Amino acid sequence: MKIVLAPDSYKGSLSAAEVCHILTEEIHGVNGEIEVVSMPLSDGGEGLLDCLGQALGGEIFPCQVQDPIGRSVTARYMMTPEGTAIIEMAAASGLPLLAPEELNPMLTSSYGTGELILDALKRGCRQIIMGIGGSATIDGGMGMASALGLRFVDGQGNRLKGCGADLMRVAGIEGSLPKALSEVPITIACDVDNPLCGPRGAAAVFGPQKGADPEMIDHLDRGLAHFSQMIEGLVQGEGQSIKGMGAAGGISLPLYALEGAVLRGGLDIILDVLDFDGCIAGSQYIITGEGRTDAQSAMGKVVSGVAKRGKAQGIPVIALSGAVEPGIEALYEIGLTAAFPTCTNTQGLEWQITHAGDNLRRAARNILALIMM
Amino acid sequence: MKIVLAPDSYKGSLSAAEVCHILTEEIHGVNGEIEVVSMPLSDGGEGLLDCLGQALGGEIFPCQVQDPIGRSVTARYMMTPEGTAIIEMAAASGLPLLAPEELNPMLTSSYGTGELILDALKRGCRQIIMGIGGSATIDGGMGMASALGLRFVDGQGNRLKGCGADLMRVAGIEGSLPKALSEVPITIACDVDNPLCGPRGAAAVFGPQKGADPEMIDHLDRGLAHFSQMIEGLVQGEGQSIKGMGAAGGISLPLYALEGAVLRGGLDIILDVLDFDGCIAGSQYIITGEGRTDAQSAMGKVVSGVAKRGKAQGIPVIALSGAVEPGIEALYEIGLTAAFPTCTNTQGLEWQITHAGDNLRRAARNILALIMM
Repeated sequence: MKIVLAPDSYKGSLSAAEVCHILTEEIHGVNGEIEVVSMPLSDGGEGLLDCLGQALGGEIFPCQVQDPIGRSVTARYMMTPEGTAIIEMAAASGLPLLAPEELNPMLTSSYGTGELILDALKRGCRQIIMGIGGSATIDGGMGMASALGLRFVDGQGNRLKGCGADLMRVAGIEGSLPKALSEVPITIACDVDNPLCGPRGAAAVFGPQKGADPEMIDHLDRGLAHFSQMIEGLVQGEGQSIKGMGAAGGISLPLYALEGAVLRGGLDIILDVLDFDGCIAGSQYIITGEGRTDAQSAMGKVVSGVAKRGKAQGIPVIALSGAVEPGIEALYEIGLTAAFPTCTNTQGLEWQITHAGDNLRRAARNILALIMM
Repeated sequence: MKIVLAPDSYKGSLSAAEVCHILTEEIHGVNGEIEVVSMPLSDGGEGLLDCLGQALGGEIFPCQVQDPIGRSVTARYMMTPEGTAIIEMAAASGLPLLAPEELNPMLTSSYGTGELILDALKRGCRQIIMGIGGSATIDGGMGMASALGLRFVDGQGNRLKGCGADLMRVAGIEGSLPKALSEVPITIACDVDNPLCGPRGAAAVFGPQKGADPEMIDHLDRGLAHFSQMIEGLVQGEGQSIKGMGAAGGISLPLYALEGAVLRGGLDIILDVLDFDGCIAGSQYIITGEGRTDAQSAMGKVVSGVAKRGKAQGIPVIALSGAVEPGIEALYEIGLTAAFPTCTNTQGLEWQITHAGDNLRRAARNILALIMM
């Protein structure tokens, strides 16, 4: 018998690795012959690089790049032994790099992110995975593309460096992206489905948190529409309506339109990188879990991703979570077999957190008794 | 597939019948072909007659008898269609029949209980089951035996009616119990293991709640020892050391010594009367439960009784209870397979009780998913 353990952390009480450790002990307490595969997970919400770095290992490369307003900053990215570069856009072009008064998406640029990509290409990376959470930019990836070698010019032939305000000014595109870039698959981790433009677009929805006022939002929204037409003119493609293109100020647009980059949920990327499907093959059960399973869990969280993968192979997926709330029908639809709480009495939250380890053991004992009957 | 539902009530929220109803709906929601046998249970603590009456049906007979201090009172007992008389000692000789100032185990008598037994015999009962909770007497069953036809006399040959104070005075026993009584099996429901005499005996432990002061306790304890020697002299038997003989002021003594009455746990009697073993035969699962499963549950409660019976036939027994507390290892030893809570989050007790039905449904759904995989 083979059981795969694939929990998220129990926020505030147990790390995913601790959950795996406890469950392994309980399973082997019942039967030492059972093969247990531990895969502590994260949905990448707290940092794709951290999550994959812990799972895969790899070398961290520091790199001098331009921050969103052109200052030099040391950004880090990771390269796995197999040559997968894991790049966090926020390391070069993120909100935390700016003081509050510096937030202005008319002026910010994703140029530094392009520099990170260039560096990874120079080091011979064979695949790029890019996390785009926390960006400070709404430049449609113009800055990034500029760093990568595209030349954007205005009506007077002046070169545009690439920032929010430049979007509307683009009258021509010259040059090309590096040949090496076209030779590596690019996967962008994206957990929102906002389109590039319009009332649910990059400027309207994410503009305010990046410092945009209503006037800027309007300008940026029109700029993105114009810029995407220019980009798409190069390939007769279309990106405006693609779900998720509105994430991170439209950073994905050039990579999607010109390089065939794929947008995928962060968790799906993590599961693929870990070869989750291969790991669960031939297992009888998958046990997942998180601090609290509720209606939100169906939306790109670990439990839902694991349930989906389990279902695809016909493997029952059991969630063992700190708490289980009403309203999780969507998870069952996705593929979750059953959800059980480790909180089993009416002691308050504090008691449950203090006793999280023991509670998990007790809950596991009961579930194991049932499935090993 | 056959599933037996054998829950206790969820005290304060759902009756055992409601629990069965909800679980049946959930099971048939999964698969309408599954045979569901509903056996709402009780450990008899709240009234053996009520519990068995609900399960078996039967005719209620009112009967004029003497209350513990000799007043006339209408006591009820039940007779099932098969002729099983179910008699609650408390109906004739119980604490609720007396005002607080009337509590005095020197003066109280179990005479009325004997009258109830006589009435049942006259109606041709073929079996007697007697509940003995809540008695107001510590008369060693002398009053009851007196009503049934035994004549107790003192050293001067005066007849003694039978009460706590009379125990010490018995110098001779004449007459006999009715022949009909020897022809029916007598089962006494007893959930304590106190012996007749001594520091854990009928007088020492239960005397105070029946109105005995320390002097009375001493007198009654010695009286019970003397009386048991007199009774046992009739049969060269022994009853003093028998576990449970100290329940209900020693009421069981004459029935045990002279009629071979059997003392059993109330729950075991209920399960036998309901032919529980026959009902669960051939089932794949038994689902039991209660409001709160904790260390106490192993002590004669529904969950433990059901677990024991399930284990004897190798049938997995799953407890689905409002709350499940730490420290229930004894239940697993007894035969419980697993215990799950219907309370699955950190909402407080009030919320859990208000949502008890829905919580039960949700918990059931998950367990059913697991066992029907």
